[in-house]
Amino acid sequence: MSEYNSRPLIMAAEQFAKLPGIGLKTAQRLAYHILNSPVEEVEEFSNAILQARRSVKMCERCQNFCSGSVCEICADDRRDSRIICVVEAPKDVAAFERSGGFGGVYHVLHGLLSPIDGIGPQQLKVKELMSRLTDCDEVIMATNPTVEGEATAAYLSRMIKPMGIKVTRLAYGLPVGSSLEYADDVTLQRALENRSEL
Amino acid sequence: MSEYNSRPLIMAAEQFAKLPGIGLKTAQRLAYHILNSPVEEVEEFSNAILQARRSVKMCERCQNFCSGSVCEICADDRRDSRIICVVEAPKDVAAFERSGGFGGVYHVLHGLLSPIDGIGPQQLKVKELMSRLTDCDEVIMATNPTVEGEATAAYLSRMIKPMGIKVTRLAYGLPVGSSLEYADDVTLQRALENRSEL
Repeated sequence: MSEYNSRPLIMAAEQFAKLPGIGLKTAQRLAYHILNSPVEEVEEFSNAILQARRSVKMCERCQNFCSGSVCEICADDRRDSRIICVVEAPKDVAAFERSGGFGGVYHVLHGLLSPIDGIGPQQLKVKELMSRLTDCDEVIMATNPTVEGEATAAYLSRMIKPMGIKVTRLAYGLPVGSSLEYADDVTLQRALENRSEL
Repeated sequence: MSEYNSRPLIMAAEQFAKLPGIGLKTAQRLAYHILNSPVEEVEEFSNAILQARRSVKMCERCQNFCSGSVCEICADDRRDSRIICVVEAPKDVAAFERSGGFGGVYHVLHGLLSPIDGIGPQQLKVKELMSRLTDCDEVIMATNPTVEGEATAAYLSRMIKPMGIKVTRLAYGLPVGSSLEYADDVTLQRALENRSEL
């Protein structure tokens, strides 16, 4: 940020630029907006964000974000607590719930194994997952189909299988509504390998 | 935002969604980031933004954002205060200063005339501009080449010209480095009209 911008502008822009996916140009645009807004609105913005962060808790069972001690999904008797779907982040829980096709419960790891970034099992909610497995029939690995996602699923699977619990993985294949033409080679190969009878 | 998202997440996402150019998806992504960040970092973010808004002042001469009573440009003796460049917003001042080609001073209107949005001269820093014109040789209209920008320039010009002050407008023409092929018809026509001898 250059010297022709006033100090308050630089101050606000620097904060916005810390957010993921917000570049310098966008940060500056947001800072202009903030400086042009009434003080009361900026107070509301600033307080609400801090309040949200302060009030957020993690569900003591599944580690998803919640405002009480147990999240709504874990507290729901109609959900099958013997099937645990392991995901990377709270947004993945939201994605599954949106699809409406899952009646079990979740476990949020809050990250994926990534030795290069110094993220090992201690940095994830792995211990919490292990302590939940006493009354469990199946663990579904629903981490992203990326290198880290696969590694995390493989690691957890190696720990959980010896306990006599069924461990499954989300299916690979063509995205519904997509076109063969645009599918990458690996996806196409997996779709072929996992073909099912009609 | 749906009911599978916890209240703190919705709270933070709603605030981000109020910012210009931030849609629901991005707002949710930023909210996840905030909820995953240490409380101290969120406090710093929240306080710095509020502090920036509270500390910002408008230069009493040119109405640009500044932290004192007069901005650095107006306080600079080397600038020619007899040439005033009228712009819509503080970011336009930053753009001119970046180009380095202007030695006069600025006047920030903080908006453009837009009757449909209820923005008349009273909503802009027009009165402040008029009170600066006693010691002025030239006013350069540097509003954007849009309908509102043109209307604002024309309105101000009608008020300032009778005072015997020279009023000019930024040149229209082809952007430097662009290609004729991609120029729109109006720009091309203006570039032709305003051609200069080589």
